[in-house]
Amino acid sequence: MKRIIIDALGSDKGPETIALGAALTLKEFPGIALTIVGPKEIIETILKNNNSDMSRVEIIDSNETITNYENPMTAIMKKTNSSLVLALKAAAESDDVLGIVTAGNTGAIIVGSIRYLSLPDMTRPCLSALLPNAKGGYSCLVDAGATIDATSANMVNFALLGSDMMRRLYKIENPTVGILSNGAEKGKGNKLVKETYPLLEEENSLNFIGNVEGSNALSGDFDVIVTDGFAGNVFLKNTEGMAKTLIKDIVKFSKQNNRPEMMEIASFLMSKYDLSSLGGAIILGIKKPIIKAHGNSNEMAIVNTSRMLINLDSGEEIL
Amino acid sequence: MKRIIIDALGSDKGPETIALGAALTLKEFPGIALTIVGPKEIIETILKNNNSDMSRVEIIDSNETITNYENPMTAIMKKTNSSLVLALKAAAESDDVLGIVTAGNTGAIIVGSIRYLSLPDMTRPCLSALLPNAKGGYSCLVDAGATIDATSANMVNFALLGSDMMRRLYKIENPTVGILSNGAEKGKGNKLVKETYPLLEEENSLNFIGNVEGSNALSGDFDVIVTDGFAGNVFLKNTEGMAKTLIKDIVKFSKQNNRPEMMEIASFLMSKYDLSSLGGAIILGIKKPIIKAHGNSNEMAIVNTSRMLINLDSGEEIL
Repeated sequence: MKRIIIDALGSDKGPETIALGAALTLKEFPGIALTIVGPKEIIETILKNNNSDMSRVEIIDSNETITNYENPMTAIMKKTNSSLVLALKAAAESDDVLGIVTAGNTGAIIVGSIRYLSLPDMTRPCLSALLPNAKGGYSCLVDAGATIDATSANMVNFALLGSDMMRRLYKIENPTVGILSNGAEKGKGNKLVKETYPLLEEENSLNFIGNVEGSNALSGDFDVIVTDGFAGNVFLKNTEGMAKTLIKDIVKFSKQNNRPEMMEIASFLMSKYDLSSLGGAIILGIKKPIIKAHGNSNEMAIVNTSRMLINLDSGEEIL
Repeated sequence: MKRIIIDALGSDKGPETIALGAALTLKEFPGIALTIVGPKEIIETILKNNNSDMSRVEIIDSNETITNYENPMTAIMKKTNSSLVLALKAAAESDDVLGIVTAGNTGAIIVGSIRYLSLPDMTRPCLSALLPNAKGGYSCLVDAGATIDATSANMVNFALLGSDMMRRLYKIENPTVGILSNGAEKGKGNKLVKETYPLLEEENSLNFIGNVEGSNALSGDFDVIVTDGFAGNVFLKNTEGMAKTLIKDIVKFSKQNNRPEMMEIASFLMSKYDLSSLGGAIILGIKKPIIKAHGNSNEMAIVNTSRMLINLDSGEEIL
């Protein structure tokens, strides 16, 4: 039986919410087993209270969390009994594992994934972020921050991983790929983009369509946006930051002008740009994918991210 | 008498609007002379119709425009009688010139500034963009796209140029400087950021306060945000793109739900994030600054950008 590993610690909402999410996941996917890493008693109580099928559950006891305030490298090296490290070890040891769901410290997840789940061929991991685009769908940004100093060969691999993911998750047969650059015209770009461009052109399995600018990346014309982890992280955080800033502007405008009805538009935008409803980002390019759920994920986010892992494996379940 | 050079071609609104802007500039600043490069007859007619003091005006006749659709390098090399090239030559030849105002092709302005206005000490130009921040002021992003593959020495210079500009334009005595990175903690960054960080710390004339993430760059805590031209251009265009996308979302919501009053908030955000009212971006690190006014700048934008050049020179006029 295929198995998903769920890290029950590291979420802002506590292990109870994650355990409830695990209970719902067991009900939703009767063919899937779970390994849940976290405080055993709490998890067991919640699962039993929700009439979970305990024959499909393994609990690895852990009471050690890696918080968002810790140095990722130090935390991964020292906290070897933390829920995250135990989850990574469990993933490395079994072939049946589809992947890990965790709401923990992103930096620690990346460092830990390199430490425990690196591929033997020196492939570098990438953080793949799904961002809402102007056509109402999602575009995949790879790398959003796992490999900060990427090579052109890394970038080609990010494009392949992102394309494969979009095929499996969204049934897009031939995902379009753009490379993030400082101009749309061919020939624009920094040294890395100029080196990567011809390699993407040569790669027959990619539907590479050229450069894409920051202003146009989320137009929906590009299913996959390839970039290095540095520029990708700046792009991702700026996208989230700008959405938040404009929503705050609306709230302020509504209050200052005593126009409560304007809050409707703020709510609409909040739900559109709330990445937590989607399940956050996915680490690819390692032995098993890891889905980073937002720190404030609710129980349904655990079900949805588990579904993504199933889709990533089989490409059969519809998201 | 100090002189401003105005490129009357390259604007979407035609030379008439720029000439009208020049007439208003002459009235607003009686101590400033203008060199206007563009179609002589049109410019002369408009200036005279507006009772301009022609003793402070020089017109360099040109009917050749570099459009936004042209390759910047080719255009600068071949169109040696274009208004932009003639403006650059005029700036290079005179000591009294405060700088150039142009609404032309940004790429061509940068290439042209390197060709005609490079400093002898190999300083690289930077495009400095003024972006509205969450505190209601402006933050300066350097470099927003002039030096795509920057060195750490270039980056330090961008920080100095940006700080100096914020001091002169906004009377900020000790502008705070952050370096754009993939994490707020010291030690985060790509190779270039890690190399630049200690150099910024050592530079006593800078008020360097550390790394800044994409999500926080426009918080208002950072007067100057230093980055390389590649990441800066991605950041700038994404910032503009996200503002446009959310405004479009609001317009769509308003129409689909038949709620015309929601358009008020769209208008408010449009004016807040309309960079054309500000005068666009400034190229520093060359012999004379060039202000790139937006392609759709109106006549008042010409007055405002001229005021910025006066402030950049003396630091006395209030923006």
